[in-house]
Amino acid sequence: MHGARAGALRWCLLGCGWLIVGAAMAAGNTPTLAETLAGSTAAEWRAVDPDQTLYMDLPQGRVVIELAPRFAPLHVANIRALVREKYFDGLAILRAQDNFVVQWGDPDDMRPLGRAQAELDAEFTVPLDTTPFVRLPDRDGYAPQVGFSDGFAAARDPRAKQQWLIHCYGAIGVARGNDPRSGNGSSLYAVIGQAPRQLDRNIAVVGRVLRGMELLSTRPRGSGAMGFYEQPAERLSITAVRFASELPEAERLRLQVLRSDSRSFATLLEARRNRHDEWMRNPPGFLEVCNVPVPGRLAP
Amino acid sequence: MHGARAGALRWCLLGCGWLIVGAAMAAGNTPTLAETLAGSTAAEWRAVDPDQTLYMDLPQGRVVIELAPRFAPLHVANIRALVREKYFDGLAILRAQDNFVVQWGDPDDMRPLGRAQAELDAEFTVPLDTTPFVRLPDRDGYAPQVGFSDGFAAARDPRAKQQWLIHCYGAIGVARGNDPRSGNGSSLYAVIGQAPRQLDRNIAVVGRVLRGMELLSTRPRGSGAMGFYEQPAERLSITAVRFASELPEAERLRLQVLRSDSRSFATLLEARRNRHDEWMRNPPGFLEVCNVPVPGRLAP
Repeated sequence: MHGARAGALRWCLLGCGWLIVGAAMAAGNTPTLAETLAGSTAAEWRAVDPDQTLYMDLPQGRVVIELAPRFAPLHVANIRALVREKYFDGLAILRAQDNFVVQWGDPDDMRPLGRAQAELDAEFTVPLDTTPFVRLPDRDGYAPQVGFSDGFAAARDPRAKQQWLIHCYGAIGVARGNDPRSGNGSSLYAVIGQAPRQLDRNIAVVGRVLRGMELLSTRPRGSGAMGFYEQPAERLSITAVRFASELPEAERLRLQVLRSDSRSFATLLEARRNRHDEWMRNPPGFLEVCNVPVPGRLAP
Repeated sequence: MHGARAGALRWCLLGCGWLIVGAAMAAGNTPTLAETLAGSTAAEWRAVDPDQTLYMDLPQGRVVIELAPRFAPLHVANIRALVREKYFDGLAILRAQDNFVVQWGDPDDMRPLGRAQAELDAEFTVPLDTTPFVRLPDRDGYAPQVGFSDGFAAARDPRAKQQWLIHCYGAIGVARGNDPRSGNGSSLYAVIGQAPRQLDRNIAVVGRVLRGMELLSTRPRGSGAMGFYEQPAERLSITAVRFASELPEAERLRLQVLRSDSRSFATLLEARRNRHDEWMRNPPGFLEVCNVPVPGRLAP
């Protein structure tokens, strides 16, 4: 009896509604993510620029990263110089610290940077400009304003006339030492846990993972301090890092991101803030900026 | 030159200071976590009750969970009944959804619950009582008050006279279907990504992972809907789940948690809120409740 009664329900837990397309809307429920995306129009999707897209190929598969040159132009340019010289090929994932970051780079820190700069002006924040920004009405503790810019979680401080990217899950940042100019993009990290917002405005965030996040988030955690791998054999070798634009067009993934200023994204935000369906008993009435999935897809 | 100059610094990134014990304090810097813990007194640590501690043994190692009976007395009692009857032995990890949860239980949903109840009154919140609570001064968007109760991240609503545990990284919750009474503890999940705060007050949270979190967070993500494993072979079998108190004393881990009302924990909170050292350029001046590591250790 127990099995027959509770089985399917208890399993689908955590929101059966998100899976059931159609029935919920008919019942007046909050549209599910699947429903919202199914109802989106082609114009609501932005094609990801192959010239701002990195493919990091690992033995297990490909991690796809979208860079955000508006938020860290010098760092993105430096990463571009490194990638064009195949700097990352054969380097390694050096560190995986649970609930924090996975980091990669040169284990010996000896590989020449070629045309790339060893030091860069800090880009922890950049001046407010005409970057699109869809502001969340929800209050944030770490920044005066938070929202989304072309799919990137971002913050603004109108008084300081600055903006910056937020360290949400999947954000890609530039490792640095104590010197704010010491981050040059030759060592990068991805956030794999609770958003380490204390890093915001202290490190240049240069992009976010669009696909293959699980290849990073499931890396065995290192046993050394801060999750560094203590034995070279524990490191995972990076096969190659390329810009999508370096590959023949037929070999590129035609990725799209749901526009931050689209009606469907607004629907999605409101559904997460105030979801009403059979499962949800106490809709939060609030939305934290890093608790938002920004949908991506292959071009239909 | 590049290697010699930037190497150690760029690697220790993300806060070299947290590793360097001693020097920082001498320089007037914010004490590091290591410094704070090194300076803690024995009285600041609470011994974890073996009768509220679950050992979930997986082929790769042991996950240690501390239960919080004050926040979900009926659910903890039901889990106790299940564990005493060895309900979980030979069951499996069924699901791993990236940036969300890992869930375990009975893949066939056929195993009898024995003396445990199939339905329980919902414990999404419990009445405010004399539970210790150290409130954070930092504003939270999801709850009127947030803080820590015996090491568990918790929220309070004084007007509604309710309290509840928060879905931070490592929190353990009780899977349920649409019926609020359908969660009985026979299927549990652990949060492995950004705190899914929308689940707060919608599911009974019964505890948190004290050790072995990486055994859950690195599980391969399932390719089915919501991260369910599509093939039985992808599931990971649970060797056994026992209360620590069921084991001979010599075989128990003597775990301690830093008391939420201790001076050292207050120091740690303030160091995360306003860290001043050589690395940090823009201390956040704010602390989000799920962005706090609650220290544990083996009894010295």
